[in-house]
Amino acid sequence: MPEDSMDKPSIVTCTAPVNIAVIKYWGKRDEDLILPINSSLSVTLHQDQLKTTTTVAINRSFQEDRLWLNGKEEDITHQRLQSCLREIRRLARKRRSDGDARSEDSVGLSHKVHICSVNNFPTAAGLASSAAGFACLVYTLAQAFGVEGELSGIARQGSGSACRSMYGGFVQWIMGSKEDGNDSVAQQVEPESHWPELRILVLVVSSERKPIGSTSGMQTSVQTSLLLQHRAEAVVPRRMVDMIEAVRRKDFPAFAELTMKDSNQFHATCLDTHPPIFYLNSVSQQIIHLVHRYNKYCGETRVAYSFDAGPNAVIFTLQQFVPEFVQLVQHFFPPDRNGEDFIKGLPVKGAALSMELKQNIGLEPVPKGINYIISTKAGPGPRVVDDPSQHLLSAEGLPKKTTV
Amino acid sequence: MPEDSMDKPSIVTCTAPVNIAVIKYWGKRDEDLILPINSSLSVTLHQDQLKTTTTVAINRSFQEDRLWLNGKEEDITHQRLQSCLREIRRLARKRRSDGDARSEDSVGLSHKVHICSVNNFPTAAGLASSAAGFACLVYTLAQAFGVEGELSGIARQGSGSACRSMYGGFVQWIMGSKEDGNDSVAQQVEPESHWPELRILVLVVSSERKPIGSTSGMQTSVQTSLLLQHRAEAVVPRRMVDMIEAVRRKDFPAFAELTMKDSNQFHATCLDTHPPIFYLNSVSQQIIHLVHRYNKYCGETRVAYSFDAGPNAVIFTLQQFVPEFVQLVQHFFPPDRNGEDFIKGLPVKGAALSMELKQNIGLEPVPKGINYIISTKAGPGPRVVDDPSQHLLSAEGLPKKTTV
Repeated sequence: MPEDSMDKPSIVTCTAPVNIAVIKYWGKRDEDLILPINSSLSVTLHQDQLKTTTTVAINRSFQEDRLWLNGKEEDITHQRLQSCLREIRRLARKRRSDGDARSEDSVGLSHKVHICSVNNFPTAAGLASSAAGFACLVYTLAQAFGVEGELSGIARQGSGSACRSMYGGFVQWIMGSKEDGNDSVAQQVEPESHWPELRILVLVVSSERKPIGSTSGMQTSVQTSLLLQHRAEAVVPRRMVDMIEAVRRKDFPAFAELTMKDSNQFHATCLDTHPPIFYLNSVSQQIIHLVHRYNKYCGETRVAYSFDAGPNAVIFTLQQFVPEFVQLVQHFFPPDRNGEDFIKGLPVKGAALSMELKQNIGLEPVPKGINYIISTKAGPGPRVVDDPSQHLLSAEGLPKKTTV
Repeated sequence: MPEDSMDKPSIVTCTAPVNIAVIKYWGKRDEDLILPINSSLSVTLHQDQLKTTTTVAINRSFQEDRLWLNGKEEDITHQRLQSCLREIRRLARKRRSDGDARSEDSVGLSHKVHICSVNNFPTAAGLASSAAGFACLVYTLAQAFGVEGELSGIARQGSGSACRSMYGGFVQWIMGSKEDGNDSVAQQVEPESHWPELRILVLVVSSERKPIGSTSGMQTSVQTSLLLQHRAEAVVPRRMVDMIEAVRRKDFPAFAELTMKDSNQFHATCLDTHPPIFYLNSVSQQIIHLVHRYNKYCGETRVAYSFDAGPNAVIFTLQQFVPEFVQLVQHFFPPDRNGEDFIKGLPVKGAALSMELKQNIGLEPVPKGINYIISTKAGPGPRVVDDPSQHLLSAEGLPKKTTV
């Protein structure tokens, strides 16, 4: 190891994406290892719109492991964080003992790490940031410690759905059957280049109340819902096969119908939980009605919705249908500020709505029901950031002023 | 038959109650015979608060069968009405051919009927009036034609849940297994006198939208929900046993928990329907939160909710808890007019709410979210009205002015 690397920290910065499940994960069969009761399938969103950036610095002069999240130092002793750190260090140790020449170049395994992570999307957007966050943490730590190979099983131990953020495009998380969870990993079904016409709109819904967290929510569901076990055992296996087939064939109507049915079934099992869990609010319900009425009016399935553990809608559609549907959303959820800044991300062309279409939808407009739309598409998996100016930590291993 | 009975119509008037299912009926295995995919169990509400009154007149001078509902003449050729008329006439004919002496006194089977029916509760209350309506129709026709015995199987063919309104107290509708439906009938589990402490509050919720009707709703659910079949086959049979046991033992916490779980599971299968069906609105959700938080605060299950195919809540509780819970409802859903006329039916004593209780509930009040409360209890089955002044039809067989 060259002399100067002992004094300056080894620094690496990576980014990782958010993913949205179209076959939902809800319920663990092992709480510690985070093993799910069913397989799931997601679309990785493009990092141009939504990403986590993480810098890891390693140096023998660091006194302890430290973590800064979105500019604030956080407790690093959190069990799931420790699981990821421990697993990466274990793999690095294994590589070294296996005599991998390259690992001789890597930093000392006993050295402490400084970790700094930021999201480019507001927490208020209600998008599950833990998937992107843990995927980015594990990917960046792996780079820093010179670890390669299957990493989704480690990300899974940070946050279940994080394993799916380790790949781009269309990703399945295979539930596995082993007790140690070694076969519960993510796999890419198709890369993001497979279906370039697919577009994704995140409708960020106004909400007063903070919904119940997914970790405790799914625990209660597993304990009390008599429908959840049936879903996991008898419904999802068939749906996984059908969804992979729909993605491979780029069959939008099949993909869309299955996406909507699975979102609704997930929320049905939440309602079957005791006490019941409600994630959909009245605006979510209105969006659901809008989508079904629009598809019915069109005589074909052009748009699908999916809702995670919150009221925000994720809309899937094809490029050619985006302008009209976005215009419809603006019509039935008139924004506050004349549409200014209402659409973020990929630009959306204007469109005219026929009186006939508006009348056929026949919903009462809900002013300010939707805060804004993030327009995006499927995107790649985690990436190393080559430009050193993008590091979130300084040469001293402390957060740069701009990230605090 | 005496001479004058040929000219004056034979008139009979009866009343029948509303019932609220605590193990829900949702889904038919035979649309024509109205045979359900699972058994169900209900509580008959007291007719002092909610009832249908029906007068049937039979006379050889009538030219055709006619029907008036809530003061308006309606088409009597409706298939389900015709089923009930046909079945009652068939039973009457059978009695006559069996040589029952009494049937010689009854009116001519070929004579036409005039039927007049009114509800003492507004349709706007959103309470399923078809159960009380068809139960009253069948019971009154049976009286008029001198038919006795098992009648719930006929009421079932008017409206499924009507069979349960043929008895008072706690009633099960046994799904049966025969193809002709002859074993799909209602049975009383316990009379209304069994559990005098039980109280029922109907919270009539404000709603702009008319929800999808239960007939078409349950059709779509049977066709599309993968969870509904599982519920019918694997969940309800056990729940029927447990619910009958809870009623027999007057075990309120067991009764209440099962009632809430089954209501939520019914709505879960509605959400699992494609397109999904929403009957619970934001006020319904708020009532659900209120009940669970109140029970948690009390450290015991004092209150339960049940929702049918609409946003109104039916609350079950024990007499001693009514004043405090009603006061809580008034606090979190402040009525329009200073509480005047807010509570209809059985009187409710005032109660003071502690600051601690209100803070523990911690919900944002929803002004005018609930229109009014109907305070009632379990009640008896259909009754003959002896007082001729209560007939809804005049001696000429036409609606009296007061009923139009």
